[in-house]
Amino acid sequence: MTALPVTFDDIQRAARQLRSVANRTPVMTSRTFDRLTGRQVFFKCESFQRGGAFKFRGAYNRLSQLSSEERLRGVVAYSSGNHAQGVALAASLLNIPATIVMPNDAPYVKLQATREYGAEVVLFDRQTGDREQLARSIAEERSLTIIPPFNDPQIIAGQGTLALELLEDVPDLDAIVVPVGGGGLISGCATAAKGLRPTIAIYGVEAEGADDVRRSLQQGHIVSIPPPSTIADGIRTPAPGSLTFAIIQRLVDDVLLVSDEEIIEALRFAVQRMKLVVEPTGAVAMAAVMCGRLPERVQRIGVVISGGNIDPTLLGQLLESGDVHS
Amino acid sequence: MTALPVTFDDIQRAARQLRSVANRTPVMTSRTFDRLTGRQVFFKCESFQRGGAFKFRGAYNRLSQLSSEERLRGVVAYSSGNHAQGVALAASLLNIPATIVMPNDAPYVKLQATREYGAEVVLFDRQTGDREQLARSIAEERSLTIIPPFNDPQIIAGQGTLALELLEDVPDLDAIVVPVGGGGLISGCATAAKGLRPTIAIYGVEAEGADDVRRSLQQGHIVSIPPPSTIADGIRTPAPGSLTFAIIQRLVDDVLLVSDEEIIEALRFAVQRMKLVVEPTGAVAMAAVMCGRLPERVQRIGVVISGGNIDPTLLGQLLESGDVHS
Repeated sequence: MTALPVTFDDIQRAARQLRSVANRTPVMTSRTFDRLTGRQVFFKCESFQRGGAFKFRGAYNRLSQLSSEERLRGVVAYSSGNHAQGVALAASLLNIPATIVMPNDAPYVKLQATREYGAEVVLFDRQTGDREQLARSIAEERSLTIIPPFNDPQIIAGQGTLALELLEDVPDLDAIVVPVGGGGLISGCATAAKGLRPTIAIYGVEAEGADDVRRSLQQGHIVSIPPPSTIADGIRTPAPGSLTFAIIQRLVDDVLLVSDEEIIEALRFAVQRMKLVVEPTGAVAMAAVMCGRLPERVQRIGVVISGGNIDPTLLGQLLESGDVHS
Repeated sequence: MTALPVTFDDIQRAARQLRSVANRTPVMTSRTFDRLTGRQVFFKCESFQRGGAFKFRGAYNRLSQLSSEERLRGVVAYSSGNHAQGVALAASLLNIPATIVMPNDAPYVKLQATREYGAEVVLFDRQTGDREQLARSIAEERSLTIIPPFNDPQIIAGQGTLALELLEDVPDLDAIVVPVGGGGLISGCATAAKGLRPTIAIYGVEAEGADDVRRSLQQGHIVSIPPPSTIADGIRTPAPGSLTFAIIQRLVDDVLLVSDEEIIEALRFAVQRMKLVVEPTGAVAMAAVMCGRLPERVQRIGVVISGGNIDPTLLGQLLESGDVHS
């Protein structure tokens, strides 16, 4: 077996790097959710992370390891939103100039927050443009370092620190359930969790309209899908990365699918019953547990709520359009 | 000086009664809120309490001290909402039959939750009916024990346990800021906090349209106002109680006022920036700090977010109708 691109040691190093910089986010429970699902569920709430999502972990870990020359020149990132905010915030804390390439249909709240952190935002059209290509040409022009959203060992290691904390707080979990976009979060969490507790199961969850990782696993190689359409804007990635896919193939037990309706129902439950503001992507793993997608034997479950950056107008619409079933 | 109706010992006893039954709610912080206000603020989030508000504390403390005969016969309570849910939930945990008298304009989510906890709900018209009178006649008819919403030593002691926890987590606060309706929460918190830390300041906050306690303090005796109109439905009380007012007169440093617009702005900040679902009453103390109502010298501040039970339709409307200034 070839060695994986990220080790448990990398994650522990990232945890030291992030100590006293990242928030140690709370683990919440809901008696009602447990009663409804017949499981014991522990929600790791990255909605309370700095920048409103887990992305700050990977971004800060990566940026803090730049050379002083690289720091002076600055960084560029491309992102549908939360990675943008994570990089912008980490860059501002480390006094590094940041340029962010964002799709012009990203939620306004994410665009605004990225600019508030002092980053320069460059917009592109997600249907026609290639953001990676655009970021690369900006990077070349201005000698900037590209900070990719997921396919990078230090980014992956940073995201994995979340699972370290979760297992410190609740050591005897049967499984951790994680939303999957490009795979940075789940590959980091799987590396951390299986390093601490080899018997734990790791489940990824994708939206039905964005099942690139599930398809890639089934075919045994990376499969690209057309620009995915799902309400979960944080996981609209057309394909996993080479590094994240290698880790997912080895360490992830299964990738499950949920519909947009199921995601919205979970989001409403989070707001109405748990008093948590979550974004659609943040409700994806929760939706899989609510809808009974996990095997019966999996009883004690860690669920990652990946972020809470939802446009207030969209949240308002989702809340007004119907009541949660419970 | 006459002795006050609730002692620090009562609160410590209540804390023992509630241990492993009530949630120890988290204390949250926001770097952005601190930067905007120039203070260090610690939010005690009773939105995460069982039943979605602090009311469960007092209700459970009171109900757990009924005789076995009283438990068999059952209890009756009158409430604009959260006390209803608190009593209904505590009663269901203790296997006590509960009847709740609620205004017919209470938020639907509170009516529904009260019924879900197994209580019988009796509706009345807040503009014409006297809920206290109605509860009393039901109590007589069916030999039930009345559980008043605030004017009761065991209710007050239960609510005060919140301040014990807050000061255990953050011992060196200059002040605690608390929303004021009938005064049960603030009189319990003041008794607890000044028992632990005599130099701490306690500030109450009322909505402009519901300033019965501020007026009562100014006049030196209990003043009744007409049925108050404010978006903060949890503090629409026309007058403080005899017990709560006696404690407030002795232990509360000042009662401040905020407008409905200021409450809504604080609520939006909580949702958009802190990812917390709070009800309008829950945002009242936060609004006072946001709007600079506290003296400059008060730097380290505990703010009580009293609950998170907001009708999803109302929350949707508040979120869609404008952006938070920040």
